Amino acid sequence: MYDLIIIGGGPAGLTAGIYAQRARLKTLLLEKEVIGGQIAVSDVIENYPGFPSISGAELMEKFEQQARGLGLEIKLTDVIAVQKKGEEKIVKTSDGDLIAKSVIVATGAKPRRLDIPGEKELTGKGVSYCATCDGPFFKGQKVIVVGGGDTAVKEAVYLSKIANKVYIAHRRDQLRAEKIIQEKAMSTPNIEILWSHILKEIRGKTGVEKVVLQNLKDNTVKELDVEGVFVFVGINPTTDFVDVEKDKQGFIKTDQDMRTSEKGIFAAGDCRTTSLKQVSTAVGDGAIAAFVAEKYIEEMA
Amino acid sequence: MYDLIIIGGGPAGLTAGIYAQRARLKTLLLEKEVIGGQIAVSDVIENYPGFPSISGAELMEKFEQQARGLGLEIKLTDVIAVQKKGEEKIVKTSDGDLIAKSVIVATGAKPRRLDIPGEKELTGKGVSYCATCDGPFFKGQKVIVVGGGDTAVKEAVYLSKIANKVYIAHRRDQLRAEKIIQEKAMSTPNIEILWSHILKEIRGKTGVEKVVLQNLKDNTVKELDVEGVFVFVGINPTTDFVDVEKDKQGFIKTDQDMRTSEKGIFAAGDCRTTSLKQVSTAVGDGAIAAFVAEKYIEEMA
Repeated sequence: MYDLIIIGGGPAGLTAGIYAQRARLKTLLLEKEVIGGQIAVSDVIENYPGFPSISGAELMEKFEQQARGLGLEIKLTDVIAVQKKGEEKIVKTSDGDLIAKSVIVATGAKPRRLDIPGEKELTGKGVSYCATCDGPFFKGQKVIVVGGGDTAVKEAVYLSKIANKVYIAHRRDQLRAEKIIQEKAMSTPNIEILWSHILKEIRGKTGVEKVVLQNLKDNTVKELDVEGVFVFVGINPTTDFVDVEKDKQGFIKTDQDMRTSEKGIFAAGDCRTTSLKQVSTAVGDGAIAAFVAEKYIEEMA
Repeated sequence: MYDLIIIGGGPAGLTAGIYAQRARLKTLLLEKEVIGGQIAVSDVIENYPGFPSISGAELMEKFEQQARGLGLEIKLTDVIAVQKKGEEKIVKTSDGDLIAKSVIVATGAKPRRLDIPGEKELTGKGVSYCATCDGPFFKGQKVIVVGGGDTAVKEAVYLSKIANKVYIAHRRDQLRAEKIIQEKAMSTPNIEILWSHILKEIRGKTGVEKVVLQNLKDNTVKELDVEGVFVFVGINPTTDFVDVEKDKQGFIKTDQDMRTSEKGIFAAGDCRTTSLKQVSTAVGDGAIAAFVAEKYIEEMA
């Protein structure tokens, strides 16, 4: 019987682990793939305070070492479901059942990919899914944003202040984004919207050099020189295994103390409904989740 | 005219500064005393992910350098008031008025002191105002908690799992804390409550060695050997200068996106209503506040 099982070994989960160990909770962290999560594949992070520039892998290694140094037990296994049994939580994994007094879900979210040639190879080398994270690398350059929703158009406006030129490629002939954001994008001189266009391919050797676009109206194909490709076509949280209240996209709803709709189940980081998904915010979430879980355990005992 | 004025140069304010600079907002950070805020006086921080052990001053220097490296303008001045003029905010300082489209209040909060001999001299050397921050330094030792409210008693229970012995000195003959927390404290074998006792003095050379206690019932005075003194007699936010919705203690109420009751005024870090006050949480708050302020400015423009 654990006091706390943390599901997910990214920044939120590892921070929760650090705080839980310091609170002397009997804690187990479960990770299905690689310690560090999504951010571990980032080449450069320049907006986590304390590190002007560091690779995601290196930063996550520091988090992991710090958590392990405090005695955090980490196990690589896949979580199939979280169930309740009275006040206990049963965490069903591919290696059997585990029992805990409380659970923190910190499983993150994955941006939807375009699944086109060159995308995977050039991710982190010009292909990005986060303008706040990577925008500043494209100062004075040309970038293309893919998508037509709120996030795509807002981030295009954000990028227009950094990059020289921002294209928006959108499959439809109108944007889905809020009117006010649309107007902003349309009145920004260095934003150009390519209506009814989809990306077919991203090309480049060591970094993005150009994209291949198809016009869906007349099916013509053309190339466009850009140094960056920002993809905003949705994001999928990893939350299917747990039955708590979620928003339409599947993100877990919490209060400011990271409590979900189920007592004793908390959520932290990218898997919950938030407006910003960053190492900085995941760290804040993880600290709060472990702190509030500790108080919860004390009150149930 | 600034896009954003950040009031306060602690972890929340500096993080907001980092994010605002990356978003190319015309930003000014105002600090009244010392860059780094409360945490800059901490001898050792071991729970900010990425740094297993670092001094508060050193960590805050890293934050400041990172923000300045991105071009953040910092000015040392005292803010007297924040006023509205249409959609603009007027920030009144001892050096004159400044105008901005948006404001982030990140002025922090100060724990109330006991104002007894030895307290100031031994702060950070055994005297602490935060169990989550400093508790783990007292493994196997004896500590005394001062206070009788929820925070004092909860933190005494937290400390009882780390320290060998935890005294609670409380001026009254009953606790103010929630019943369930009281019961927990009373049933914890290594917690001893000293009813109707106040601290008169804290003694020690390089660290806390003993405290002098007065029994308010019979006015007798005794000494007690302890290595740590945890003071939980309240905390005061620095928020008088701004007219937004606050809780009873004066902390600023915000939603999860750091929006206050006034459009264009955001709050981040210890000055807002939160359950946990840490560098980790301030960093998350600061990132969100700057991100949401940027979107606010875009929509008003």
